[in-house]
Amino acid sequence: MKNLLKIIREFNRRRDWNQFHSPKNLAMALSVEVAELVEHFQWLNQAASRSPAPSKKEEIKDEIGDILIYLVNLADQLDIDPIQAALDKIKKNRKNYPVKLSKGNAFKYKE
Amino acid sequence: MKNLLKIIREFNRRRDWNQFHSPKNLAMALSVEVAELVEHFQWLNQAASRSPAPSKKEEIKDEIGDILIYLVNLADQLDIDPIQAALDKIKKNRKNYPVKLSKGNAFKYKE
Amino acid sequence: MKNLLKIIREFNRRRDWNQFHSPKNLAMALSVEVAELVEHFQWLNQAASRSPAPSKKEEIKDEIGDILIYLVNLADQLDIDPIQAALDKIKKNRKNYPVKLSKGNAFKYKE
Amino acid sequence: MKNLLKIIREFNRRRDWNQFHSPKNLAMALSVEVAELVEHFQWLNQAASRSPAPSKKEEIKDEIGDILIYLVNLADQLDIDPIQAALDKIKKNRKNYPVKLSKGNAFKYKE
Repeated sequence: MKNLLKIIREFNRRRDWNQFHSPKNLAMALSVEVAELVEHFQWLNQAASRSPAPSKKEEIKDEIGDILIYLVNLADQLDIDPIQAALDKIKKNRKNYPVKLSKGNAFKYKE
Repeated sequence: MKNLLKIIREFNRRRDWNQFHSPKNLAMALSVEVAELVEHFQWLNQAASRSPAPSKKEEIKDEIGDILIYLVNLADQLDIDPIQAALDKIKKNRKNYPVKLSKGNAFKYKE
Repeated sequence: MKNLLKIIREFNRRRDWNQFHSPKNLAMALSVEVAELVEHFQWLNQAASRSPAPSKKEEIKDEIGDILIYLVNLADQLDIDPIQAALDKIKKNRKNYPVKLSKGNAFKYKE
Repeated sequence: MKNLLKIIREFNRRRDWNQFHSPKNLAMALSVEVAELVEHFQWLNQAASRSPAPSKKEEIKDEIGDILIYLVNLADQLDIDPIQAALDKIKKNRKNYPVKLSKGNAFKYKE
């Protein structure tokens, strides 16, 4: 991840792109990339979505790459460590979704 | 990242949630989390989006955490390494956005 | 629709909100509202999504209302008639998805 | 709007597409179309987003058309009248955003 961050920074620096990379713009770009991923699955049923054709899988891999690039870039602009953010969030999720109440149930237990 | 993946797998295994985690469903959940991030920036101008208030920043960090959790989870369901996907995608981006044509210009050079 | 447009304009005028309603901001807000709709369906299978519980259906109706409000507002800012835009787009779709090639097949025939 | 609904129903019936049009799938497709709209604005500042170039504006009109088509289609699958949903939602919004507290302020007054 550290290596990826370094490469992203260098990529942007060489193109003088930080001027465009406000968190507002990057959040928009992130949502566009996620939609390109969603598009691959929109007409499939759930079972089919688990085993995409190899050519589709390569495209899906590219979209996952794009999403991570924008996410790391956005987090960097705000001086946030995304791995740490995820680890901290999982701690909160453990409280919001206790095993006893959430086993086999995807909804928040308050619902 | 490897540690994060291990923790996410264990979190889901204990709750028996893999049944819900088709790529189709996870792509939807990912798009919902990204929208929760977008919401923080929707009425701000770009300059203001660069320096959110501390309380907002904590919420933004949580959203970034959620997005990474779902992205890692989705990639794992499809046996894709998200870091590798990002590194491979940057190689493609170098060709799509050559420095000479992209410097100070956020658009694909074909446009 | 004309009546709805008139009511939306008056709602915004009284709150002096046109200053926030750039197409950029409204597109973001629209994507957030759509995600709130997506959230209702993310863990359901397709059959279940066709018959939501009455309390859920009321919330879904509210989200559909919000989406239409933002869409009408955004179109109005750009002086676009959304009904005409939809009618014109369907004409294009008839060419992109000819009956012979699209019957029972959700994908563009080029694919 | 009634005419548009009739045309959309006929378009889908001739292609036998109702089998794909679960609310879950349509919500995904709607989010993809909205992202295609967002993409037009992601690198623009707010002022520039108010006056897109004529060629861009034609594309934006198409996206607005697609969004309305999917929204009308989704609402129809759930037997919801989108215009009525918007009118009812504005009534709620009047309470959530009273003029006195919301004038010149885009945020919910609770915040």
